[in-house]
Amino acid sequence: MVESWSFLDTVESNFRPLVVIELAKGTKEETIEWFTKRIVDKKANGGAQLLIQPLVTENGVENIYLVGASHLRLLLGAEAVGLVKECSDNSMRTFTYSSRKTFKHFADDNHNFLTMAECQYIIKHELENLRAKNEKMIPGYPQAKLYPGKSIVRRLLTSGILVQIFPLHDREELKKLCHSWYGRVKVGYQPLDDIRCYFGETIALYFGFLEYFTFALIPMAVIGIPYYVFAWEDYDKYVMFATFNLLWSTVILEVWKRICAILTYRWGTLLMKRQFEEPRPGFHGVLGINPVTGREEPVYSSIKRQLRIYLVSLPFVCLCLYFSLYVMMIYFDLEQWALDYHKENESNFSSLMLYVPSIIYAIVIEIMNRIYRYAAEFLTSWENHRLESSYQNHLILKVLVFNFLNCFASLFYIAFVLFDMKLLRQSLATLLITSQILNQFAESLLPYWLQKRYNRRMKKRMCSKKTDMDLSLAEQINMEKEMGTYLGTFDDYLELFLQFGYVSLFSCVYPLAAVFAVLNNITEIYSDALKMCRVYKRPFAEPTANIGVWQLAFETMSVISVVTNCILIGMSPEVDALFPDSKMDLVLTVAFIEHLLLAIKFIMAFVIPDKPRDIQIKLAKLEFESLEALKQQVRAFQMQLHFLLIHH
Amino acid sequence: MVESWSFLDTVESNFRPLVVIELAKGTKEETIEWFTKRIVDKKANGGAQLLIQPLVTENGVENIYLVGASHLRLLLGAEAVGLVKECSDNSMRTFTYSSRKTFKHFADDNHNFLTMAECQYIIKHELENLRAKNEKMIPGYPQAKLYPGKSIVRRLLTSGILVQIFPLHDREELKKLCHSWYGRVKVGYQPLDDIRCYFGETIALYFGFLEYFTFALIPMAVIGIPYYVFAWEDYDKYVMFATFNLLWSTVILEVWKRICAILTYRWGTLLMKRQFEEPRPGFHGVLGINPVTGREEPVYSSIKRQLRIYLVSLPFVCLCLYFSLYVMMIYFDLEQWALDYHKENESNFSSLMLYVPSIIYAIVIEIMNRIYRYAAEFLTSWENHRLESSYQNHLILKVLVFNFLNCFASLFYIAFVLFDMKLLRQSLATLLITSQILNQFAESLLPYWLQKRYNRRMKKRMCSKKTDMDLSLAEQINMEKEMGTYLGTFDDYLELFLQFGYVSLFSCVYPLAAVFAVLNNITEIYSDALKMCRVYKRPFAEPTANIGVWQLAFETMSVISVVTNCILIGMSPEVDALFPDSKMDLVLTVAFIEHLLLAIKFIMAFVIPDKPRDIQIKLAKLEFESLEALKQQVRAFQMQLHFLLIHH
Repeated sequence: MVESWSFLDTVESNFRPLVVIELAKGTKEETIEWFTKRIVDKKANGGAQLLIQPLVTENGVENIYLVGASHLRLLLGAEAVGLVKECSDNSMRTFTYSSRKTFKHFADDNHNFLTMAECQYIIKHELENLRAKNEKMIPGYPQAKLYPGKSIVRRLLTSGILVQIFPLHDREELKKLCHSWYGRVKVGYQPLDDIRCYFGETIALYFGFLEYFTFALIPMAVIGIPYYVFAWEDYDKYVMFATFNLLWSTVILEVWKRICAILTYRWGTLLMKRQFEEPRPGFHGVLGINPVTGREEPVYSSIKRQLRIYLVSLPFVCLCLYFSLYVMMIYFDLEQWALDYHKENESNFSSLMLYVPSIIYAIVIEIMNRIYRYAAEFLTSWENHRLESSYQNHLILKVLVFNFLNCFASLFYIAFVLFDMKLLRQSLATLLITSQILNQFAESLLPYWLQKRYNRRMKKRMCSKKTDMDLSLAEQINMEKEMGTYLGTFDDYLELFLQFGYVSLFSCVYPLAAVFAVLNNITEIYSDALKMCRVYKRPFAEPTANIGVWQLAFETMSVISVVTNCILIGMSPEVDALFPDSKMDLVLTVAFIEHLLLAIKFIMAFVIPDKPRDIQIKLAKLEFESLEALKQQVRAFQMQLHFLLIHH
Repeated sequence: MVESWSFLDTVESNFRPLVVIELAKGTKEETIEWFTKRIVDKKANGGAQLLIQPLVTENGVENIYLVGASHLRLLLGAEAVGLVKECSDNSMRTFTYSSRKTFKHFADDNHNFLTMAECQYIIKHELENLRAKNEKMIPGYPQAKLYPGKSIVRRLLTSGILVQIFPLHDREELKKLCHSWYGRVKVGYQPLDDIRCYFGETIALYFGFLEYFTFALIPMAVIGIPYYVFAWEDYDKYVMFATFNLLWSTVILEVWKRICAILTYRWGTLLMKRQFEEPRPGFHGVLGINPVTGREEPVYSSIKRQLRIYLVSLPFVCLCLYFSLYVMMIYFDLEQWALDYHKENESNFSSLMLYVPSIIYAIVIEIMNRIYRYAAEFLTSWENHRLESSYQNHLILKVLVFNFLNCFASLFYIAFVLFDMKLLRQSLATLLITSQILNQFAESLLPYWLQKRYNRRMKKRMCSKKTDMDLSLAEQINMEKEMGTYLGTFDDYLELFLQFGYVSLFSCVYPLAAVFAVLNNITEIYSDALKMCRVYKRPFAEPTANIGVWQLAFETMSVISVVTNCILIGMSPEVDALFPDSKMDLVLTVAFIEHLLLAIKFIMAFVIPDKPRDIQIKLAKLEFESLEALKQQVRAFQMQLHFLLIHH
């Protein structure tokens, strides 16, 4: 056991670079010296007790530093962040250094016990928890104020001294992962556990959801194909398809919760305790006392924030929604114009022209979504939320409402104002397919091509003909630091959310939507995998136990789709013919069926347990054990008292 | 500090009786000896380390035992059950013996630090946790099998050796409580904190809810009165009333969550950790291994239980529902008969006769509800649920569905099949008022009168003219042990739930319902208080943090009432007149408004935080502190390691 102690000191034997720190060009010497000293300093002195090395290239020192840590330091860090690992008896437990021997694959010399992603997560956590002691400012930068307890790294980032921190790729691992993930054409599941080991739980869970969602759409697609092939237009068949769709969408969302629990239990994040949330980097305010921690930190009045939200953000969002509706009306004018044109001079060209307005509109929608996204980010960060989670919730709410209206308003208008089912089907198809093509192009292929071109130029400049594997560390870092930063799974989930809307909101009008969604998602898996592995910098792993607010968003969408589908069916001429005497009866029947479906949905969501029985038992077992341990403590304490009493 | 140790031994100085144990007449000596030995035995030997004394009356020993505990034992017990008490700095913290000095009002000689209800709860917990060690059966009763870990008290109860365990009343405290609660006529709040100290959190929370609900109904009642007085029948006014009602019912249910959080934070139960749930007393099965605890205990296959639920209970409930509908149809025949009678010979008598069918039906409903209640209890206990909570959930579900249909089916039938608003109003009024009168009578006044008569006879037999206060302990116990047992808040909440249904489901037809509900609830507070204090045995305190499944039940009712009210308004002739051209437009408008109201309800429920801000901050503070403590431990451990390293 003794040999492991020696890793604790900062001697640079066995140094394995894990995380790259890039400082701004021309950062003052005293700042660098102070910062690196804090990183290597002992925990007892308020340091992070990590290892750091400057990167030396042919051009000399470039203000790039490599951070690593000793094996023991990483194990202690794993305890500090509360990692959950598998024990020898296959149960999942919170890792502690004292109980390390009970964990599967643990050995003092096994440096692969923690995955590289975990090590990088630990280092990020330790760096972010490096806090100011008595420093009033960052040495050399009097305008970059500090106060006791402020995260140094966050202040360095906000004052631009620290350009970026990112984890290094592991070329060998990455190659293996790429091969098993998308390297060969195969039918099968993605290597989710390997993805999780390399990219962390949040990203693995996204790919898990994408895969699950694609499989879940297959039954809808299979049932939808004959409607297209045989041009079924019967009333019964549409009703059957819509009913199946509605119940199916409830089932898949409930079952996803169970699958998510299975995955995150296996990955240990289901059991991981939530860490106490620190203020987000951009948060600012006058110094005051935090009522929760009792520490001095910036405080910002909640009333001011509410005023900003309700007096500025809300009107702005409403204005954007209005603008989006205005653009929609222009689209309908265009549509009318194209129709007139087609009527005047009927030709192949003019019938092709019929699709042009929809395509233009789809492109405009995508552009508006992207511009709005920036505005929403700016506004939400201006609202000055203290916590990252509250920032994210407000951002997601803003973006979801706008995207929903922007994408679906025209469809709602066609369906429920114009009552034109043919146009609805055509618009839906055009919007869905165009937005999918645009997304795939803008998200993955374009950045990949740009990256490729940049790499080629870089290599040419270095006048070498090495392959990726032979690159020196310095070359690798120089390449990676120029790559784009992956901004999280937000856009990917949003795309799936809108796709779910296209598939389910008007499913009884266009059963083929699910087929396109499935086709898109299969390529989406590949292009997203490519994006993660080749286009972007490696992101830090982020533990997570579920897909969070997206579950709620998908469920809300499936409730709305019950309403829209019932109305669509009620409006179809076939149903109309069933109630020749009274329109009243028709509407009442449709309303009744709608309420019945909604009731069935809610009952199903209530009856299907969120976690499979075996996971429930495992969780209960852990809870039982911790309660037992507590009881043991109380009992031991009582014994001690008893002992005292006897000897008194 | 030393003097407190002396309380730990079982010397019977300072014995204060807290809990009464009544054993069956003719219980074998060896059983009594073994049981009392286990109760007084040291914790280390698997005993409960409590104090016990037989009750000696003029007739000799009567198999009644008094249980108490030393002050120190109670404090240790408070730690074991995880009581949360107020600290000197006004924060709420889990009580531990080692930190006892930091708690408000704590002194080693202050025996009122724990309330009597808390002491009794602790003793009940300790008695129930008295577990079999190696005993294969209860000594003297070979048929009463035991296995290691089985609760002895539960086995004694199920085999009928133990007749009952109940906590003693505190005559003096009770008198004070009665006086401040219902003794004087006053306008003001109930003494909820005193009720909580005497009866525990579950009962105090019920009275808190009853009071809150009554206050919340007052605005509805006030707005409803002019509708009756001025006989307003305008469309606009009804719509306004219904809309107000619907939004108001959402608001009051959301605000109740906040008030509930405030109350239970003050009482400490909001922070109390859930204890690990043991199998309920009636649970049986073959001995096996519990997958969670790994202990030997009876197991019962979940599939068998599901079969019992779906093949027996479900058909039975459906049959009961069918029977209830059948009875309803008989009621309508009666109603028709009464109407015909009135038409034939119009007189005061015959117009009075019009109300008779409704009154008979209301009485029959109450009787059916009560009979069904027994059937549901029998069935649910036959389903053999392992946990009390799962038993309760299945019971509540069964009872709620039946009661809902039984009480409201006739009203739905009148409203949506007969379309007879006048009859609806009359039925609603009769049902509401009759059921309220019946409930008050059956629940409180009748038992009170029986109890009073019994007491008088008892006292006569004892040939004494003492007042309640002068009774000897033996006389008090003899009186109390014959009192009825309070079976929990279930029936009380159910009554409120049905009342909420009467008020909200058809509120736009009968605005006066809220007035009757308010009047009923004011007397209900008094009669329930009387019931608790005078009619029933004192119940054991039961910590609880919320009203549980009832919150969900009330919320579901308020969603259903949106639907019914919208339909009622849509059916009114005034609204009809607004859409002279097309019934379609009418129905579509009503459906649109209904969906809008539902959406507003859900958004309101989402936006209003469940806990007030200051409670949120207090909870966050506690969480922060516990995380900090954990961090401190990790840090101390790292320091230790560091120290080791240096000295190596």
